[in-house]
Amino acid sequence: LNDCLKNESKRLNALLILADDGGFEMGVYRNRISQTPNLDKLAKRSLIFNNAYTSVSSCSPSRSALLTGMPSHQNGMYGLHQGQHHFNSFNNIVSLPKILKNEGIRTGIIGKKHVGPEMVYPFDYSQTEENNSILQVGRNITNIKLLTREFLTNQSDDRPFFLYVAFHDPHRCGHTNPEYGEFCEKFGNGDIGMGTIPDWQPIYYQADEIDLPYFLPDTPATRQDVAAQYTTVSRLDQGVGLILEELKNSGHLDDTLIVYSSDNGIPFPNGRTNVYDSGLAEPMFISSPIHKERRNKVTYSLASLLDVVPTLLDWYGIKYYNHNSEESNKNEIENNAVLTGRSLLPLLEKEPTNKTDEVIFASHNLHEITMYYPMRAIRTHRYKLIHNINYNSPFPIDQDFYLSPTFQDILERYRNHQPLKWFKTLQEYYNRPEWELYDLKLDAAEMNNLATKSSYKKIFQQLQDKLSNWQKVTNDPWLCAPHAVLENQGMYKNNPQCLALDNLY
Amino acid sequence: LNDCLKNESKRLNALLILADDGGFEMGVYRNRISQTPNLDKLAKRSLIFNNAYTSVSSCSPSRSALLTGMPSHQNGMYGLHQGQHHFNSFNNIVSLPKILKNEGIRTGIIGKKHVGPEMVYPFDYSQTEENNSILQVGRNITNIKLLTREFLTNQSDDRPFFLYVAFHDPHRCGHTNPEYGEFCEKFGNGDIGMGTIPDWQPIYYQADEIDLPYFLPDTPATRQDVAAQYTTVSRLDQGVGLILEELKNSGHLDDTLIVYSSDNGIPFPNGRTNVYDSGLAEPMFISSPIHKERRNKVTYSLASLLDVVPTLLDWYGIKYYNHNSEESNKNEIENNAVLTGRSLLPLLEKEPTNKTDEVIFASHNLHEITMYYPMRAIRTHRYKLIHNINYNSPFPIDQDFYLSPTFQDILERYRNHQPLKWFKTLQEYYNRPEWELYDLKLDAAEMNNLATKSSYKKIFQQLQDKLSNWQKVTNDPWLCAPHAVLENQGMYKNNPQCLALDNLY
Ligand SMILES: [Ca+2]
Ligand SMILES: [Ca+2]
Ligand SMILES: [Mg+2]
Ligand SMILES: [Mg+2]
Repeated sequence: LNDCLKNESKRLNALLILADDGGFEMGVYRNRISQTPNLDKLAKRSLIFNNAYTSVSSCSPSRSALLTGMPSHQNGMYGLHQGQHHFNSFNNIVSLPKILKNEGIRTGIIGKKHVGPEMVYPFDYSQTEENNSILQVGRNITNIKLLTREFLTNQSDDRPFFLYVAFHDPHRCGHTNPEYGEFCEKFGNGDIGMGTIPDWQPIYYQADEIDLPYFLPDTPATRQDVAAQYTTVSRLDQGVGLILEELKNSGHLDDTLIVYSSDNGIPFPNGRTNVYDSGLAEPMFISSPIHKERRNKVTYSLASLLDVVPTLLDWYGIKYYNHNSEESNKNEIENNAVLTGRSLLPLLEKEPTNKTDEVIFASHNLHEITMYYPMRAIRTHRYKLIHNINYNSPFPIDQDFYLSPTFQDILERYRNHQPLKWFKTLQEYYNRPEWELYDLKLDAAEMNNLATKSSYKKIFQQLQDKLSNWQKVTNDPWLCAPHAVLENQGMYKNNPQCLALDNLY
Repeated sequence: LNDCLKNESKRLNALLILADDGGFEMGVYRNRISQTPNLDKLAKRSLIFNNAYTSVSSCSPSRSALLTGMPSHQNGMYGLHQGQHHFNSFNNIVSLPKILKNEGIRTGIIGKKHVGPEMVYPFDYSQTEENNSILQVGRNITNIKLLTREFLTNQSDDRPFFLYVAFHDPHRCGHTNPEYGEFCEKFGNGDIGMGTIPDWQPIYYQADEIDLPYFLPDTPATRQDVAAQYTTVSRLDQGVGLILEELKNSGHLDDTLIVYSSDNGIPFPNGRTNVYDSGLAEPMFISSPIHKERRNKVTYSLASLLDVVPTLLDWYGIKYYNHNSEESNKNEIENNAVLTGRSLLPLLEKEPTNKTDEVIFASHNLHEITMYYPMRAIRTHRYKLIHNINYNSPFPIDQDFYLSPTFQDILERYRNHQPLKWFKTLQEYYNRPEWELYDLKLDAAEMNNLATKSSYKKIFQQLQDKLSNWQKVTNDPWLCAPHAVLENQGMYKNNPQCLALDNLY
């Protein structure tokens, strides 16, 4: 069958499942406590990525990168899409759903969209926060199951499909819907006033039994916070099971590529909005019906969410193009850059013998509109170089995370001069140097900054050059920031330059 | 005639003329060198404002404020609209052109629009950079004349009109079109390769004869820069003359309110992108066919460009509403705030006897996407209080201004340890304290910061309270920045709070 399908010209389907702020709280990633039988089962029929990273640890920017193959600084989604933040991709950006639509593939989205404008991210079938309650399409797994069924059973023509199921779990909800608990872990649990999600059997955890990530404080408050997160992960996990059941029932389990990942780091200190590994690393598995060689195997190859577009285009056999067929406003920016990601499908067949040159990049700009903290990072298997562009100002804290029990506990301990029981001080967290260089082999927690060490000068320079080249290729407006101005128009149009500001005192 | 028209229920017309980066380079504002007979003539039949200020010294934010009556932080236009900057007002913002359209008034725009999205800023007649070369609709005054004629003569029905003529003069063009000179002062001057604007008789100035503003360095480079600016002002001035001639020829000179102003400070150091008076103060005159009492008189009342919407609505006799009649996306932010500006029409009749409580506000966020430097300011007749929210970082410099002869000269002198011949050092310009308080009566140049002086503590506090109240009323996302987080959802929905970050070390 494999060879038969491989050679068949008929295009197959794809299902992209995304968690919201999801991390490694699952058995397959060696979490011993959080029970995720459905995710583990999917992983067993997948290639499991041990080195997958988002390009940005923030919801809308990450989703825009996921759906365009371009980092947020290239597609224009510099921060959150909703409300006052109001970021949008450039009108002339060519996205995956747009290409697939043009190529006759039926597209659907169920759950959290969080990107715009509509013209850049069109889907044939759309059940999102734009036309539903986000809780109903993102957390009510019975509803998500039924919507998935609707999409799959209305598959009346013989077009292949692309279905994107974007759970809102396990995102926090304390700052918007505290009545449902910090992670909406009570929403739909059957308790009085909580409603019932028929398909969900909540799993409850003890604070003293959770598997604490190294980058979180070891305090009762944080442990309780993580325990609530695990309960919400149980809803995500059972939702994934329901979707896969729908896929199976529709007869498409054996002609559909399944990709599972999450948009950004967990909403804890050093996680979301950070470019430390604790903010960038994502779970990822890819299950292919025609590549069974490496099922339940682990790849250590560096992968990026920027690779998802090239991977899916490769799967559908579509060549990428970035020319927008519709006439675009003449004042739009030109965007002729190529994608910098790569198809991950070859990894489904074999592990590369030489991974020494592998590299991934990160680009963070804002999150909320008030949270300007552009960062650029390059990561190899061994090293991470981070450029904090607004390093003079304190690292910003978002409205959601600020109210979290974990951060409130940190603040309270700080104010009361109690030990934080954390791997860094609050001051260290806020105040970051312009450049951070870590040897991840010796220092996975990114504690020991080598940026100013003379013995690392050559490595620093090599990484800086590669990072700068990537910024150039991806049209980064921040290429010259913060000590120079990028001039790229008029007399500099064919020869862009960084011109010094002399603003370092 | 006056009383007759005043009592007539028929609505009259309005013409809004806006300069781009224009300042006080004209006879009526006591510039002894720059020759502006047409502006001076218009001023003679106008009330002349001596204390008019933009709410933000940046093009798109200012124009969005001009057309909505809301500061940029309230309407969403946090920075420049074009290209990679990509700022847009919220989709559900109700603007002047939208209200006028709904009320049966024919609307037209000629010249530089620089705001979006289209749905927020619709005009019946539109000749802008979106469908033309900006040089042709913004600087070719013969073309602007003909477009104005087209708009006025196509006035076939008896609807009143609102025409907005937005010159691109006297904006710099060195960074995009250096072939035309630093201010496009050679564009259309008849020299080889420059083309010809038939209606323009350029006036040329000597560098040693210009009228140097107090906030510019007294150097040959800067004087040459200002001389070029004056030549471009001559094109603006003659363009204004042509438009008024068209208005007269169409028979509407006596039933049209004329407002002249500029969007932001001149593109020189301490000017554009600053909230010092040198960045905020704008020329403004209002000429009414039915209020002739104070023609060629000066008002010292504090006026804001935020007053233009209330003024024009008052002129048309339309009550302001901010409810968008079209169904808006449920995820849009709610915007129920009232406008904080006021109609300036009463000033056309008489000067207020007591101006002590008058106050204007400023709100700057970004300019280019990389130039995050939010500032809030309150100005009374006597005092100015400035809050520099990203004060830890150097004040940002834009691509256009960076290449200007004036700034290049400052940089070169700084690098060569030569005297800048400027009223501040480059270091002072870049590095600003969080709070600046000036007594404008004693210190019009805003040199002597009183913010930490204990004798000014009470004044500081009063101004800070008023500023903070204005921020609340106008839904400012930066209300609590940079040392606290604004919580206004969930349990804080009906009781928004600034919660401390403890990020000051
Ligand atoms: Ca997220
Ligand atoms: Ca301007
Ligand atoms: Mg994650
Ligand atoms: Mg001005």
